[in-house]
Amino acid sequence: MDIHPAILASSHALGEWPLCHVRLQDDARFPWLVLVPRWPDARELEDLPEAERARLVSEIVQAGAIVRAIGVALRRPAEKLNVGALGNITPQLHVHVIGRRTDDAAWPGPVWGVGTPEPYQSGHLTTAIGAARAAFSSGAE
Amino acid sequence: MDIHPAILASSHALGEWPLCHVRLQDDARFPWLVLVPRWPDARELEDLPEAERARLVSEIVQAGAIVRAIGVALRRPAEKLNVGALGNITPQLHVHVIGRRTDDAAWPGPVWGVGTPEPYQSGHLTTAIGAARAAFSSGAE
Repeated sequence: MDIHPAILASSHALGEWPLCHVRLQDDARFPWLVLVPRWPDARELEDLPEAERARLVSEIVQAGAIVRAIGVALRRPAEKLNVGALGNITPQLHVHVIGRRTDDAAWPGPVWGVGTPEPYQSGHLTTAIGAARAAFSSGAE
Repeated sequence: MDIHPAILASSHALGEWPLCHVRLQDDARFPWLVLVPRWPDARELEDLPEAERARLVSEIVQAGAIVRAIGVALRRPAEKLNVGALGNITPQLHVHVIGRRTDDAAWPGPVWGVGTPEPYQSGHLTTAIGAARAAFSSGAE
């Protein structure tokens, strides 16, 4: 199994980058990407080879641009990005990139473990995935 | 002002790395470092030039080793590292590197905003700073 089942169950595939699987967290409260480095045994950042660590931070910045594009498409532009690698519950190394707003459901605290995830309704899911893929391809040029 | 007053007030200086001010969060519940890139106008990772982003992830990994050394010195070795760049409250870009244990005050949730910080008592502060500085110098070789 390349991606931990808990990550698969809570997110939608968006695409593949040189280092990471890119996934949309299925929680319409926040525009939220999850990056999963294609090193399934890695648990901490230190478990990645040094070149891959630099690639990871580059992909985190790209993910931020996508999170912003999703926020705009859903008419809730992000005002701040939150980036976190926790892994207390799901041991496989993964990085969260989340768009935050002062009027969101957890501001100013972190989002993890707060309230109940609200899965995307199908129209919003299509909008979010479409915005992400458009930002993807413009970033790849 | 190079470091935001809120960061200064909640942490102790440990040293200087090529990119970051390195500080010990004054909360004895968790071995916890705060890295503050010496780019006082940066708010998001994307605000750092690309070369500095790679340096940041390298310094995050070094900070993880120091967090582990502090945990050992205080006889509460870290079992997992948590890394986060949030900045919802303090706008200056800063990165938290925190050692977690399954018996700590916030497990398995994130630490931010949970409970009340417990400033180090002087003996433990000396131990923590000593362990950090020893790990610092061994890492610099």
